[in-house]
Amino acid sequence: MSKISLPDIRAVLFDVFGSVVDWRGSLIADLSAWGKPIGLAPGWAGLVDDWRGAYAPSMDRVRRGELPWTILDDLHRASLEGLVVKYGLTGLSDADLDHINKGWHRLKPWADSVAGLIRLKTRFIIGPLSNGNVALLVNMAKHSGLPWDMVCSTELFRHFKPDPETYLGAAKILGLQPHQVMLAAAHNNDLAAARACGLATGFFARPTEYGLRQVRDYAAEQDWDVVAADIGDLASKMGC
Amino acid sequence: MSKISLPDIRAVLFDVFGSVVDWRGSLIADLSAWGKPIGLAPGWAGLVDDWRGAYAPSMDRVRRGELPWTILDDLHRASLEGLVVKYGLTGLSDADLDHINKGWHRLKPWADSVAGLIRLKTRFIIGPLSNGNVALLVNMAKHSGLPWDMVCSTELFRHFKPDPETYLGAAKILGLQPHQVMLAAAHNNDLAAARACGLATGFFARPTEYGLRQVRDYAAEQDWDVVAADIGDLASKMGC
Repeated sequence: MSKISLPDIRAVLFDVFGSVVDWRGSLIADLSAWGKPIGLAPGWAGLVDDWRGAYAPSMDRVRRGELPWTILDDLHRASLEGLVVKYGLTGLSDADLDHINKGWHRLKPWADSVAGLIRLKTRFIIGPLSNGNVALLVNMAKHSGLPWDMVCSTELFRHFKPDPETYLGAAKILGLQPHQVMLAAAHNNDLAAARACGLATGFFARPTEYGLRQVRDYAAEQDWDVVAADIGDLASKMGC
Repeated sequence: MSKISLPDIRAVLFDVFGSVVDWRGSLIADLSAWGKPIGLAPGWAGLVDDWRGAYAPSMDRVRRGELPWTILDDLHRASLEGLVVKYGLTGLSDADLDHINKGWHRLKPWADSVAGLIRLKTRFIIGPLSNGNVALLVNMAKHSGLPWDMVCSTELFRHFKPDPETYLGAAKILGLQPHQVMLAAAHNNDLAAARACGLATGFFARPTEYGLRQVRDYAAEQDWDVVAADIGDLASKMGC
């Protein structure tokens, strides 16, 4: 593992779902507001939790070769088609399903995210390093004002995190060595995989990401290079 | 060819070298200022013109399979190593050559570019669609304040423009149909290739791009979907 020196860092790349944006709160609010005037109230919180529950298994099917390379929008859509049956959502049009699926493009940032990113952007290249596909991440950034310098999706590498191709690929396309890139995330497992590739690591907790179901990531589980309270505090600790 | 409807356009992607930034004027000024205190004055204008002259032939070597996929930074560096011999620049260190080569990361925008892009960004996804590699484009954007929403380099597709894989690949990663994407450029040949792939096209001339050596692209050579005076005028014609 490279020795990390914070002054060497040139780019800070962020995990997005849960770390920068509140996927659970955003989706529940967005879909509840959409469903209300048309009488759709299937228990959106349960559907959203189940949808996120299908995320890792669906990527594992790609990782094991059971599916060809598939972007996250399409994995989300396949999972959703099962869930609308489970939750008794009948009569939805293709446009309705597309609107629900694009809820992932409309996720909103945690309260500190945008201000913290703007500060970090003054000294570092900032971008996502997310399993969201490029279109999802670009639309989300436009929707929520995320001031990325560039959009690094694992789609570019046709691998999902935590595969090493994603962390190493991000450093490579930026023309940087791994130790010049920090992954910033609220998830210890993501940071562990990044550290194993030689990246710098920054942790901040998002203790309400999973609502009452959260069982992990309340605190740093390794001596990450920076441990912060939130993205604003990360900016302060990075000298911004 | 798709029928283009301007209200359908969601993303405006820009050719960069010559269209958004003044590569020739920037490089001559940058290298002259760098060389002066160390007594290097090989005739930078000639070197820069020759360097740009090597651009298309070097990409053609990749296109014909004589070279494996090679990013533009590395093509530039290989061309430069021949030119320093031709221009009698002896005794340069590897760091010197790297600094000169990274001159392409420090190109400055034409006077109207940044203000026009900021206006377009209010209604459209904006990004480059350039043969510059990702690192070059990201560093240039940081250096010169280009407010891209995302950085689309042809490196992502391992093809150089005007190969169709680049225009179609850009639309695909944005989750858009080709007619929902405009290529904006000061080069008729780039626009012709984009139009052949079904993209919308926007032209503005940069009549001083090549200095006194400019021989083409003084005016639109087809009925491009938008013909503007510069990027500010393009923004106006796109309703921004």
